Amino acid sequence: MAQKPSIPKGTRDFTPDETVKRNYIFDTITDVFRLYGYMPIETPAMENLNTLLGKYGEEGDKLLFRILNSGDFLSNTDAQTLSNRDLNQISRQICEKGLRYDLTVPFARFVVQHQNELTFPFKRYQIQPVWRADRPQKGRYREFFQCDVDVIGSDSLLNEVELLQIIDEVFRRLNINVVIKLNNRKVLAAIAEIIGESDKIVDITIAIDKIEKIGLQKVNEELKERGLDNNAIEKLQPIFTISGNNEDKLNQLTEIFKNSSIGTKGIEELSTIISVVNDLEMNTKVELDLTLARGLSYYTGAIFEVKAIDTEIGSITGGGRYDDLTGIFGLNQMSGVGISFGADRIFDVMTALNIFPEKVNSTTDFLFVNFGKNEALHCLKLAKILRNRGLKTEVYPDSDKIKKQMSYADKKNIPFVAIVGEEEMKNNIVTIKNMKTGEQISVVTEDFRLLERIVVSSEWCVVGSE
Amino acid sequence: MAQKPSIPKGTRDFTPDETVKRNYIFDTITDVFRLYGYMPIETPAMENLNTLLGKYGEEGDKLLFRILNSGDFLSNTDAQTLSNRDLNQISRQICEKGLRYDLTVPFARFVVQHQNELTFPFKRYQIQPVWRADRPQKGRYREFFQCDVDVIGSDSLLNEVELLQIIDEVFRRLNINVVIKLNNRKVLAAIAEIIGESDKIVDITIAIDKIEKIGLQKVNEELKERGLDNNAIEKLQPIFTISGNNEDKLNQLTEIFKNSSIGTKGIEELSTIISVVNDLEMNTKVELDLTLARGLSYYTGAIFEVKAIDTEIGSITGGGRYDDLTGIFGLNQMSGVGISFGADRIFDVMTALNIFPEKVNSTTDFLFVNFGKNEALHCLKLAKILRNRGLKTEVYPDSDKIKKQMSYADKKNIPFVAIVGEEEMKNNIVTIKNMKTGEQISVVTEDFRLLERIVVSSEWCVVGSE
Repeated sequence: MAQKPSIPKGTRDFTPDETVKRNYIFDTITDVFRLYGYMPIETPAMENLNTLLGKYGEEGDKLLFRILNSGDFLSNTDAQTLSNRDLNQISRQICEKGLRYDLTVPFARFVVQHQNELTFPFKRYQIQPVWRADRPQKGRYREFFQCDVDVIGSDSLLNEVELLQIIDEVFRRLNINVVIKLNNRKVLAAIAEIIGESDKIVDITIAIDKIEKIGLQKVNEELKERGLDNNAIEKLQPIFTISGNNEDKLNQLTEIFKNSSIGTKGIEELSTIISVVNDLEMNTKVELDLTLARGLSYYTGAIFEVKAIDTEIGSITGGGRYDDLTGIFGLNQMSGVGISFGADRIFDVMTALNIFPEKVNSTTDFLFVNFGKNEALHCLKLAKILRNRGLKTEVYPDSDKIKKQMSYADKKNIPFVAIVGEEEMKNNIVTIKNMKTGEQISVVTEDFRLLERIVVSSEWCVVGSE
Repeated sequence: MAQKPSIPKGTRDFTPDETVKRNYIFDTITDVFRLYGYMPIETPAMENLNTLLGKYGEEGDKLLFRILNSGDFLSNTDAQTLSNRDLNQISRQICEKGLRYDLTVPFARFVVQHQNELTFPFKRYQIQPVWRADRPQKGRYREFFQCDVDVIGSDSLLNEVELLQIIDEVFRRLNINVVIKLNNRKVLAAIAEIIGESDKIVDITIAIDKIEKIGLQKVNEELKERGLDNNAIEKLQPIFTISGNNEDKLNQLTEIFKNSSIGTKGIEELSTIISVVNDLEMNTKVELDLTLARGLSYYTGAIFEVKAIDTEIGSITGGGRYDDLTGIFGLNQMSGVGISFGADRIFDVMTALNIFPEKVNSTTDFLFVNFGKNEALHCLKLAKILRNRGLKTEVYPDSDKIKKQMSYADKKNIPFVAIVGEEEMKNNIVTIKNMKTGEQISVVTEDFRLLERIVVSSEWCVVGSE
């Protein structure tokens, strides 16, 4: 018996309807990236495990998909190792490659490897799938697309501003209301410093990240569990409860950090970004948010996150400044900043809000019904002319029952069906049926301009009355 | 010390220049597919090994990239199996998933799995990478893109004609001179039948495929080695040496196959396709070629291959009719036909012939030089207006030395640089430098229409004389 087909859990097929909608998102994002001078690159799906391991923390290493070596994959593994079943050691010996986990580490690797071919500041975007062996759940997949845009080789804050402008423009075009949350890793470092727990910064940022989710009290409890003493937690409270608009918050923070050089630097950076953004009159609100921490450890300056206002779906875009991402591959002092658009989340938001523009679904403009060999050949010639005029045209391949052919047009949402039977051929006309209204009219075959007007401008009424 | 970065052998990074050129090829192909009513689908990079194994022959199974199971990957493997080092058995136990090897088998799996959501005849295209653990060599990679277009659920020969039209149109648009080789698997089956060696058809097609490469004599020797007797080889000779134009060849074959029903059917199919194609007056020559066999075993009717005339690079597109591809997944009587454009080969041909249109390389239109904080803010506002008018615009992020900024524009092939220093701000003008000619002119800041004309239409002379 034939096997029942299925796909690996956490992965997805995309039907035509889904694919054109996804492409609409990718195309919109790409257009904006290009408008700001960013150029595309692509990297291989497989990277050497050397490149990937140790870059995403211990948890990340576990989530890497590893590729079994070709040929005798056990050749490097001795009997002792096998019988010990040391999974870590064995997997390193039988797998040299893994699927990329994000686009950031491959980008850093790319920049270092191609540094002599690139022009710095290097502005690139990259839209490719990534793979993570995460437990699949709603909105989280094992294969998903990232749309990354980064500029590397410049520490100017204008790059941060530009990325905020790009976010603003992308979501304006996609018609999604969003708010941009902004913070700075230097501010977070200053917080850790002030409470005398510089080495606890990772714990603190992870905890701060949860304030919105689990509340202040639970975060305090968690910080205690993570080894902060009561005194330190006490000192954190005024920072957690800072309030007002961006300017108010910046003023309060300036006071709190007046003796911290890193804190003062962080506040300066935030102030500059916010002031330039205000000057540029963006549509999107930028909100200073101290609870924003972002998990990744390589961020050193500004960090951003974008949330859709009208849905419960969380972050749909995020990123930040990293001062030494390429250092791991031997290229130092290459500061960069970048953001990643979560195409899958954006797709979910647009689906939930039902805001895909109608044109996205545009299918075939014109279907010629097939009445048999001679008629079909005649229609193929007409179809050729219509296609040369840019109209998406099909000739139904089989001379099936008309009902079946009409049902095909219907299911495929084809707006106009052309009927050319023996009678029409003889009289040199084409009968056109409007699939929405059911109306039919006949036009002279050679009048392609008229056909075009009907299809492109849906000038049905005009035509009907002519 | 930091590790020296590299990528797995047989894989490639694509720089901005290469990526935009590749995208040009993908976009051109996509536009033509859409013009004929084909819609896109996407499938996951990883398929269950059940889906892939046994579909590409024994050799193909070896070339599959397998993904190590997550977690305790040895949990299904006992000590005995491990110490036996039975690679086949172990790899089946430690890997459940593999990377897709082509787009055809995933397409068949997709059609069966989603049969109730699809409208038949189902016309789909799919442009995604595939992976093969082949020995890397010139023009052959371990990761490469396929651009497949198929129609399934119709056995009309008009589908074959349509695919030939698509080939014709794609290569006309890409400006590549090609010839389409056409044959039919039924004709090949008839050949095997006539010489009384029906079970040897695979051997014969593989041998025929080599006539052009190694010559008739060597092929005869090879057929002998493969177990054909002299009598059979003798009978093959008139078929191997058939000559003339398509019509001549068809006439000779009709005579040869007059007692073979499958041969007669094959000739009928070929005649129909060739006659309709002639009627449609395609640019591309379609050549009946009995030496065309194509390796894949699932073809049952027409087979095609496209060769670029002006280079030595082999086949750049190929495909054929398959009557039962979905049968392996439990859906019978679903005849289909499809072709696959080899994007990497097409890229190589276009690079060798240097025929990428200039517009493909279009980069940023306009770079504002950065003279410092105030000037940059002023330029950011001007840049915003230009971007709103669709011009790709950058503001250099740092107030580096002008020489460095000009060199950036130069290396990035940016045609126009806008200079707005203190003086220009005061006088409300923008000085524009044409990077090709070195000429400079000043225009009033608000005259964005003029800026636009300069950039879009390169109306430099007109402007200069105004």
